[in-house]
Amino acid sequence: MTEHKLSDTLAAPGARTDVGPAVPAPGAVGALRPLGLDQARLRPDGLLGRWRRRNAEDTLPHCVDNLHSQGNIGNLAAAAGESDQEFAGMWFADSDVYKTLEAALWELATSPADAGLKDFVDTTTALLARAQQADGYLNSHFTIAAPEKRWLKPDWSHELYCAGHLIQAAVAAGRTGGSPELVAVARRFADLIVERFGPEGVEEVCGHPEIETALAELYRLTGHRPYLDLARRFLDLRGRGLLGPGRFGPVYYQDHVPVRDATEVAGHSVRQLYLLAGMVDVGVETGDRTLLDAAERLWEDVFHTKTYVTGAHGSRHRDEAYGDPYELPPDRAYGETCAAIASFQWNWRLLLATGRARYADEMERALYNAIAPALSADGRHFFYSNPLQLRTGHAGSGEEAAARRLPWYSCACCPPNIARLMASLPGYVATADAGGLQIHLYGDASLDTGVAGRPVRVEMRTDYPWQGRVELTVEDEGGRDEDPWTLALRVPAWCDTYAVSVGGETVDVPVQDGYVRLTRVWAPGTTLVLDLAMPVRRLSAHPRVDAVRGCVALARGPVVYCLEQADLPPGVVLEDVWLDPAAPVEAAHRDDPAGIPVVLTAGGRLAGSGDALYTALDESGPGRETGAPLALTAVPYFLWGNRSEGPMRVWIPLAATG
Amino acid sequence: MTEHKLSDTLAAPGARTDVGPAVPAPGAVGALRPLGLDQARLRPDGLLGRWRRRNAEDTLPHCVDNLHSQGNIGNLAAAAGESDQEFAGMWFADSDVYKTLEAALWELATSPADAGLKDFVDTTTALLARAQQADGYLNSHFTIAAPEKRWLKPDWSHELYCAGHLIQAAVAAGRTGGSPELVAVARRFADLIVERFGPEGVEEVCGHPEIETALAELYRLTGHRPYLDLARRFLDLRGRGLLGPGRFGPVYYQDHVPVRDATEVAGHSVRQLYLLAGMVDVGVETGDRTLLDAAERLWEDVFHTKTYVTGAHGSRHRDEAYGDPYELPPDRAYGETCAAIASFQWNWRLLLATGRARYADEMERALYNAIAPALSADGRHFFYSNPLQLRTGHAGSGEEAAARRLPWYSCACCPPNIARLMASLPGYVATADAGGLQIHLYGDASLDTGVAGRPVRVEMRTDYPWQGRVELTVEDEGGRDEDPWTLALRVPAWCDTYAVSVGGETVDVPVQDGYVRLTRVWAPGTTLVLDLAMPVRRLSAHPRVDAVRGCVALARGPVVYCLEQADLPPGVVLEDVWLDPAAPVEAAHRDDPAGIPVVLTAGGRLAGSGDALYTALDESGPGRETGAPLALTAVPYFLWGNRSEGPMRVWIPLAATG
Repeated sequence: MTEHKLSDTLAAPGARTDVGPAVPAPGAVGALRPLGLDQARLRPDGLLGRWRRRNAEDTLPHCVDNLHSQGNIGNLAAAAGESDQEFAGMWFADSDVYKTLEAALWELATSPADAGLKDFVDTTTALLARAQQADGYLNSHFTIAAPEKRWLKPDWSHELYCAGHLIQAAVAAGRTGGSPELVAVARRFADLIVERFGPEGVEEVCGHPEIETALAELYRLTGHRPYLDLARRFLDLRGRGLLGPGRFGPVYYQDHVPVRDATEVAGHSVRQLYLLAGMVDVGVETGDRTLLDAAERLWEDVFHTKTYVTGAHGSRHRDEAYGDPYELPPDRAYGETCAAIASFQWNWRLLLATGRARYADEMERALYNAIAPALSADGRHFFYSNPLQLRTGHAGSGEEAAARRLPWYSCACCPPNIARLMASLPGYVATADAGGLQIHLYGDASLDTGVAGRPVRVEMRTDYPWQGRVELTVEDEGGRDEDPWTLALRVPAWCDTYAVSVGGETVDVPVQDGYVRLTRVWAPGTTLVLDLAMPVRRLSAHPRVDAVRGCVALARGPVVYCLEQADLPPGVVLEDVWLDPAAPVEAAHRDDPAGIPVVLTAGGRLAGSGDALYTALDESGPGRETGAPLALTAVPYFLWGNRSEGPMRVWIPLAATG
Repeated sequence: MTEHKLSDTLAAPGARTDVGPAVPAPGAVGALRPLGLDQARLRPDGLLGRWRRRNAEDTLPHCVDNLHSQGNIGNLAAAAGESDQEFAGMWFADSDVYKTLEAALWELATSPADAGLKDFVDTTTALLARAQQADGYLNSHFTIAAPEKRWLKPDWSHELYCAGHLIQAAVAAGRTGGSPELVAVARRFADLIVERFGPEGVEEVCGHPEIETALAELYRLTGHRPYLDLARRFLDLRGRGLLGPGRFGPVYYQDHVPVRDATEVAGHSVRQLYLLAGMVDVGVETGDRTLLDAAERLWEDVFHTKTYVTGAHGSRHRDEAYGDPYELPPDRAYGETCAAIASFQWNWRLLLATGRARYADEMERALYNAIAPALSADGRHFFYSNPLQLRTGHAGSGEEAAARRLPWYSCACCPPNIARLMASLPGYVATADAGGLQIHLYGDASLDTGVAGRPVRVEMRTDYPWQGRVELTVEDEGGRDEDPWTLALRVPAWCDTYAVSVGGETVDVPVQDGYVRLTRVWAPGTTLVLDLAMPVRRLSAHPRVDAVRGCVALARGPVVYCLEQADLPPGVVLEDVWLDPAAPVEAAHRDDPAGIPVVLTAGGRLAGSGDALYTALDESGPGRETGAPLALTAVPYFLWGNRSEGPMRVWIPLAATG
């Protein structure tokens, strides 16, 4: 990690640079500074822009509707004494309200004209203020259903988890200027929490991490040091067994080892990842290198032994947990949507702290292959769990193993989590440091920001991720000969071959630490083209990943593909389809921008399969005999399940491996 | 299924033929009749005999000790008003007492001199009589901890499940003559159950099947028809949604479809298998072919798509359930010990009903590879779950994924279930029908039974399963020229080559329906040798079983083998070991009868494995490059984990598959 402080980086004159999630304070240790999501505009015809628009037009209104119909808003009304409603839903249902609020506030930052969203924010904030108790406590479940249990069950209650999401919504309110009232509500609760759990208070932590990153963010917003100190205290107290054994052991909520001593990710994956985000936040704000070292150590562990090829996290349904190293079953992948979002958020924090491209690579992988798949094409149906294989005959109709995206969940943590991620999407496109700009995510977008104290605009035109060509035009009207700066463009780790041209002239520029860096005086209107070659890749897993031995996953650019029953001839069972390694796999562009713009075509074989479950090898060979050929079509994994319900697989068996 | 009734078969004069589990009534439909476990003596130097002796000397006393130390007996004393103990353990803890009682009674049938066991039976029976309420109700949890909830939660309460195990213990008491008092206690409760749930009573079923087979057995013991009618009623009422959705949906407790309409096994595997046992019992006693057809249909399903190569059942930890077809992960195999025992019991019933060898084959597979592995060499430590792979770095310390056998469990269903299976082991060796005797399980044993109305003795000498040679001597002193009968010897499905000789002369006798059948007048002292060839088999799974693609399992005779860390050189990680398909795999006999009499030696390769979790195929090939050779030793899977705790795997990756 670089040693300089973020205050060394230079903001554009007058620009708000803190409009977005996880914005380090000026004195924090770190390498990169966010631009603020109001400085990046995603044009609506690019994929990222369409995702953001769908979020605003469909997902967010759908979330608001469900907060009403499922009783979340009614819970708060009851807590305010304005309704007789019995408590509805999960005991942490308030958190769904807070995440939706946060999403609405990020959305309003760049779409202030959305009166419906603004009304949701205002009325909900007012309701929260009325539901809040005199001492600042705010939790509808414990207020109306179990007042005598307030603060009594930290392993289970999610009180601090809910408070954390309230605080995150308030941080969005504060940074966007969207609701000073919400900031006030959150601070009243936060002050109560500091009083109870602070240095003079009880030694407790929350069974579900979230409060740590939230308090660090609230410190960033307010400059009030006790919030940061309490976040650090919660980290320091973890791993001492304060939460008790619980049903799944202390590892379930990462209470089995002090956070600085952990050597591998473990337990409930969302909890682990939110905790890691908090560790980075507290680490950069306090300069506590031990926290950052631990976070990077666990990054090494999880991305080398416990992550799906889609970027999904969590191998076990039983406790929504990481498995053993290399235990990555595609069919029973848990891959909770919230875990992918948490991974994205954690990697964003590590990217800001270190400037290392691997964190941006991971954000990209998770975005396209672990977050986007959770959402239906219509933006109103969701996966909670994101398996990499759905079998013929899948009988799991439970929400945790649904065969299709559902409109809502009894545990509805994921939909509003998607909403807040998509609403803040522009904020992750690029960053700045003292030397210039870094572009991490490619999309059809316009950046209005500042470099070296003067305004700079970068227009980015691309059909990414379907095409690897990215055209950029730099507008730096204040540029002078003596003011060179560096534009850094990420070359993803998946990309072996790339080309750069400036003003039509090819330039030979190496990849350094994951970026091509062009340092120059940018004459206004300088055009730049980055061309990332996107051949189809056939990915194989580490040989210790037993579950996908003899299989490949197809990918092109950042997008992982899959086979779906919808593309097979009638009567063909997906499990009997193997990939012919001798046949080429090629990308085919379709004139279907709203649907599936690029499919992959491949050659397959129909496996022979007898009746016997187990046979002696000498009788039938190794079970790899190849049968009739058939043409295969693979589609982007994030688009699966939009045409018909049916079997799907990312990992495809090879008909022969030579 | 044959149409004749069991009353057609001929018992030996004066012989008790009903001493054992699941003995059909004389009027039942069926093909074969049990001999009774008192007619088969397992000599203590054979493997089966040693298992039975270890059960009597170690497992059973260990169970009795734990019933005291864990509070199960204390619960009953509290229910009897003789103790202030708060309820201890699971709410169905009584069932552990009942299964231990059943085990003790089967054991006493052939070891009547065991005063300690006899005392346990007598004192526990007396305690049960005192704990029983005036109306016959007997359940310590609901008596002392939740009397107001009696009968109110059939989905959860396990009241009828516990009653079922009480009844099964009573059936053992009745058949062995071991405790008329226990029969009386059970009948009082059963009569209450008939009153409440019978034709005039409520329409309810139990969330955990068991009562169905138990009531059928009690009918067999007593001839009291209402017991059988109620068993049938419970089956008829299932699948109507009476249990409600529950946490995992109605499929969890097989309430999603009427039992006769089911086309595949589903849900909690132990519940499914106990239910299937009850379906067979009721089917043969009532002549209801639809129940038997359904049971055989589900047999086809489970043994062709959802059973591990060890005979274990259950692919999911979350709900202890069957997975989708071909979803058989070795590392996350649930393979509950009780499910293997239930499968054994179900197959025993199907064997008696139909005479088909496949059911005996399955009993053998489950016995050696799914039941025996649950028990430590010392007989005092147990697996609840029986995975086929334990990974390096396995962190699961929970009871459901223990890395080593534990002395007891908070949910202690498995240990006493093993005890009752092992105590009744002699009863499964052979059966009779009108035409003679059938030997299903080979072991060092002596059969004293009857054929055609006169006494017959068969001495069996063998080192099975370590050797395939079985020597039999038939003593039929009453044999006359006009009295031929048939000795049927099972030739397991795993055996391709066998030889039979009589009196030293090779005879050419075909396998018919899984048995060689020798029909003759058996001169006293006729010797017979069956020689089953036991080459090492390399088993591969159906190609749809993705989780073990490119792997083989090693087996010899009925025994499945595994690799254990204990046999690898220091520093070698088991996950990096592949089997060299070009190297021979050979059996090596050791002079170690109490330990590992036969190991397999094989050639292996150390896999190269980089750091990356996923790589593009063209860079590194398909991940099958072979490295340094090393010599491998495989040990019987049922003996794993007795030398040291450490990684293990049944399915071994092939270094190359040509």
